[in-house]
Amino acid sequence: MGMTLGEKIIARAAGVDFVKPNDIHTVTLDRMMSNDGTTHLTVDMYHNQLKHPQIADKDKVVFIMDHNVPAENPKTAEAHKKMRDFAIENDIKLYEGQGVCHQIMMEDYVCPGELIFGADSHTTSYGALGAFGTGVGCTDFLYAMTTGTSWVMVPETIRFNLHGELKEGVYPRDLILTIIGDIGANGANYKIMEFAGDGAHKLSVDDRMVLCNLTVEAGAKAGIVEPDEKVVEYCKAHGREAVHMFKSDEDAHFCEVYDYDLSKIEPVVVRPDFVDNFALLKDVKEERIAIDEAFLGSCNNGRIDDLRVAAEIVKGKQVDPKVRFIVAPASKAVYIQALEEGIITTLMEAGAMVMNCNCSVCWGSCQGVIGENEVLISTGTRNFKGRAGAPSSKVYLASAATVAASALAGYITEPEA
Amino acid sequence: MGMTLGEKIIARAAGVDFVKPNDIHTVTLDRMMSNDGTTHLTVDMYHNQLKHPQIADKDKVVFIMDHNVPAENPKTAEAHKKMRDFAIENDIKLYEGQGVCHQIMMEDYVCPGELIFGADSHTTSYGALGAFGTGVGCTDFLYAMTTGTSWVMVPETIRFNLHGELKEGVYPRDLILTIIGDIGANGANYKIMEFAGDGAHKLSVDDRMVLCNLTVEAGAKAGIVEPDEKVVEYCKAHGREAVHMFKSDEDAHFCEVYDYDLSKIEPVVVRPDFVDNFALLKDVKEERIAIDEAFLGSCNNGRIDDLRVAAEIVKGKQVDPKVRFIVAPASKAVYIQALEEGIITTLMEAGAMVMNCNCSVCWGSCQGVIGENEVLISTGTRNFKGRAGAPSSKVYLASAATVAASALAGYITEPEA
Repeated sequence: MGMTLGEKIIARAAGVDFVKPNDIHTVTLDRMMSNDGTTHLTVDMYHNQLKHPQIADKDKVVFIMDHNVPAENPKTAEAHKKMRDFAIENDIKLYEGQGVCHQIMMEDYVCPGELIFGADSHTTSYGALGAFGTGVGCTDFLYAMTTGTSWVMVPETIRFNLHGELKEGVYPRDLILTIIGDIGANGANYKIMEFAGDGAHKLSVDDRMVLCNLTVEAGAKAGIVEPDEKVVEYCKAHGREAVHMFKSDEDAHFCEVYDYDLSKIEPVVVRPDFVDNFALLKDVKEERIAIDEAFLGSCNNGRIDDLRVAAEIVKGKQVDPKVRFIVAPASKAVYIQALEEGIITTLMEAGAMVMNCNCSVCWGSCQGVIGENEVLISTGTRNFKGRAGAPSSKVYLASAATVAASALAGYITEPEA
Repeated sequence: MGMTLGEKIIARAAGVDFVKPNDIHTVTLDRMMSNDGTTHLTVDMYHNQLKHPQIADKDKVVFIMDHNVPAENPKTAEAHKKMRDFAIENDIKLYEGQGVCHQIMMEDYVCPGELIFGADSHTTSYGALGAFGTGVGCTDFLYAMTTGTSWVMVPETIRFNLHGELKEGVYPRDLILTIIGDIGANGANYKIMEFAGDGAHKLSVDDRMVLCNLTVEAGAKAGIVEPDEKVVEYCKAHGREAVHMFKSDEDAHFCEVYDYDLSKIEPVVVRPDFVDNFALLKDVKEERIAIDEAFLGSCNNGRIDDLRVAAEIVKGKQVDPKVRFIVAPASKAVYIQALEEGIITTLMEAGAMVMNCNCSVCWGSCQGVIGENEVLISTGTRNFKGRAGAPSSKVYLASAATVAASALAGYITEPEA
């Protein structure tokens, strides 16, 4: 029997020829990423709970401050100091306020075929480059950082065959929200979500990141798009070589197979408080749901394409005075590209607050936090109760286009034709 | 006996021909500004403590959210909501996240000869346009907003005759920090600090704002530069007419007169924890005082000239990895100008975190807060104990040039020659 793309990555990392679902293997990690959500805890454990603390290979470790950056209170500043000092002492590459961790990893590190642990759920993003990225807690991260290894139970793989193209005004964000709506928030628990087919290959690497990033919201261990020439080009443009371009064998076993005709996908709004609380924008807009805040950014949807779409929609118009429209480009590179294209000016002229490159509103704990009963429409990753602030507040998830159009209107709606 | 410039403004607002120090007059205010530091308290009092709540003239009232914007926690979001809702209900002009209140007031409202109350200490800034701006608490603000009037005890005036020009590499920020160092933090308690002389008139309106803004740190009730053609031009460029161009009479009484030869001013660093803890940069740099954070921004020093100076210094270089360099342009207009000039790109490429237009680190409660024993060098307004974060942290005040150079070096220093 053949192997799936994800199984091949694990086999490579385990140094074996063949793996199958539910096998447990010791793996050598290609890279490890930790952000300021938990690194201070990792550092505490490193110092206080290890007999012989050491870092297996500092060059495989990356620290990225993106969650509460810059610090919003002295306690956060202390946590950051712990992370920063540890990075400097151990000569670990540190990014501080230069972008959301997954975007930086994509731009600077990820290669196809790699097995990467990140101390953050949305590490699944790296499947956009044909890598197996998965989120781990800080205890697992500590083990990985100190030994260079870990263990993986081989997941089963669900195959998503994507066909055709998205219509104009429909985005990869709508596609993945549709898929999660279909399979449910537990629909891919501990599975690999593999995307292939002509529709997958037509998507840019940035688009693929939108898909893979959110697979964890369906419970997936990893989300991976079958790598192709676009992956090779992306790596090359970022100074790297794409070596391990795995694809699933013809006779690989998939536990489930779905087929999606992309031309059938419609703009989506996910209602509070669950990521699979799927609805169609055309229905939601009829309700004229008033919003207090609109957020464009995050590792899911804060890239140049998203900013371009939003800028085109708000150009020459003004954000509703009852709404604060907060924009956080996903990385310094995205930000600089956007300002060179005049996008930042356009957004600011329309009344947006443009933040530093960070998790911002999506993380819900230091920027653009919403109050009791307030309503947010967001391109962020999650909408559970209290994700963006007060427990009674509500988060709707949608695409950059829907967020921008809603910021102008003051209620959830679609861009004017 | 003649009157000083400040006395003439009060006389006009009081509708009388003559006022003298220590007289108390009822005045009609030309404008009132309140920010999110206290507006929610004003709104509470308005609703709960007034028998007949009403706003005297909504067109004279401006609300500006700049202190904790966007909200860093749900409590702030609630306070903002109270302010926003009140503004919308009462048709009061509201700015949200569009810049620091005093910068917006200068760009959009202040005219020479006006008497303006702001619910913020640094309302003294408006003297840059020949206006009498002064900070009031929210109780006084409420009275002013509901009646359109207030009372003023006429302050005595201290005259500062400025001669000549600042040397290259020396900035208005160094001048005002020197003056405060000379007269002390109580040196102008309840006085008007009036600036005139050829040296004052050579300064741009932005430069004058640096002077007037910090006069409150010497205890002044107002700081005013004798208005001239530059004020007329500034008003014209911002769509306003300069009508009341007062200057002190020849026989006006000044309680004190100081003369400053601007060419003698040297770069200054104010040490913690008092604004008059004056030192010369050339002495401080010898100590190689390590810094954790550098801040460029605030109503004192976040304008285009400051950003230009900093960008020139950091261009093609990298911020020290132990330092976070945080930049917050003072307004949207400043920000857009800076990005059109490539300044934002330069700063970001050097490793700066560029924030939205707001009080940011200077306010010390939501962005770039520093932890225990950390050291900040800042273009902000204040350096008292705990101003930027933990009580044990330390704030040094200096010019944009010194801040930028120190961000690169990792310790307090001057720009390379």
